[in-house]
Amino acid sequence: MTSHTPEPVSRSRRERPAKAALTRQGIIDAALGILAEEGLAKVTMRRIAGVLDTGHASLYVYVRDTEDLHAQILDAMLAAVELTGGGTWRDRLKGLLASYGDVLRRHPELARMALSTRPNGPHFTAIVEQVLALLNEGGADDRSAAWGVDLLLLVPTALAVEHSAEVTPKRQEIRISDVEARIKAADPQKYPNITRLGAELVSGDGLARGLWSLDVVLDGILARTAGNRTP
Amino acid sequence: MTSHTPEPVSRSRRERPAKAALTRQGIIDAALGILAEEGLAKVTMRRIAGVLDTGHASLYVYVRDTEDLHAQILDAMLAAVELTGGGTWRDRLKGLLASYGDVLRRHPELARMALSTRPNGPHFTAIVEQVLALLNEGGADDRSAAWGVDLLLLVPTALAVEHSAEVTPKRQEIRISDVEARIKAADPQKYPNITRLGAELVSGDGLARGLWSLDVVLDGILARTAGNRTP
Repeated sequence: MTSHTPEPVSRSRRERPAKAALTRQGIIDAALGILAEEGLAKVTMRRIAGVLDTGHASLYVYVRDTEDLHAQILDAMLAAVELTGGGTWRDRLKGLLASYGDVLRRHPELARMALSTRPNGPHFTAIVEQVLALLNEGGADDRSAAWGVDLLLLVPTALAVEHSAEVTPKRQEIRISDVEARIKAADPQKYPNITRLGAELVSGDGLARGLWSLDVVLDGILARTAGNRTP
Repeated sequence: MTSHTPEPVSRSRRERPAKAALTRQGIIDAALGILAEEGLAKVTMRRIAGVLDTGHASLYVYVRDTEDLHAQILDAMLAAVELTGGGTWRDRLKGLLASYGDVLRRHPELARMALSTRPNGPHFTAIVEQVLALLNEGGADDRSAAWGVDLLLLVPTALAVEHSAEVTPKRQEIRISDVEARIKAADPQKYPNITRLGAELVSGDGLARGLWSLDVVLDGILARTAGNRTP
């Protein structure tokens, strides 16, 4: 190609592509693109409207506000949660919650968001339905199952947030040895229980403690159901 | 006073005030001041050094890094937690955890931080000791008490974070009516459990659910202890 050659074809292609029709899925896809490239803070109604080349007022047919937008993104991510596995009702429930935690861990910003924003969409609805079904199978009464869902989902969410704090293995090691050092340095007269339980306070890894926590919550839900409450 | 009068006394006072000796408490106080005025993101070692008019290297005798600084601020805030109350071991434990949640709710940024940063200092140590003592009094075994502390502290922390998301009563009302609308709109064939438990899914306020969650965790800890596990 020489400098004096005109390029009429290339110029005639400079039209804008036809606008795609606005859909809920299109809005979520645009939001996920911005999320991946620029982070959650940039995922706003105005920004999405810019990407989709529309007025942001047009978005309100599908999404009420930025909070609802975030709730819908969160739901879209939850498509990856595995709802069904094998084993007893308890195995299957713990498997589902572990998968929920895995998905959140892959998206640290969403994990933090999930603590204050309830996901809005079909995937979260399917997760709640499945947790309720498994609790029912396990013998939980209605109140305990209904209120238990939030507490059960909280455990993997909080662990994902804890994990999301950009903690390197090296820093994690420092943290643990810090806690160990503090336990050893604790005055046994003033802190007899910390001194006595020292080893157990730092035993187990995140996975073991996460599964243990789920078992505790499940046992607690069943104990509430049975009226087997310790005063 | 006339313009030709020299002012030797006033001039001789233009020395800088004597620097206060650097202490852990002085560092934390400076950090709390910055936190209150400019938010957590500004609470860095360099900024504190500026406020205290010292090189930031001097701070490292007392504070290892920004994460440790945050851990120590968090501990300083926890001075307000009420460790002792009346009633059974369970009442006292729930009272302590409710007080812990109240303190975190007053400091939304710290509540979020508490999910990923373990407080470092005497107040947190005293809280852990007291939770362990009460669990011991309630009959929990060592493993269940030691691992249970984190799970118990998680409940009020997560509720404080949920509450911290700048939610106005009006928005909270919208959220609940949203969830109610979704439950009513759910296809009973596809979501039989959600349909059946509809009313219970939205019953109770945050306080009732928080206390219920603590009871569930406590029942679960005692069930683990008793070996009273449902397979």
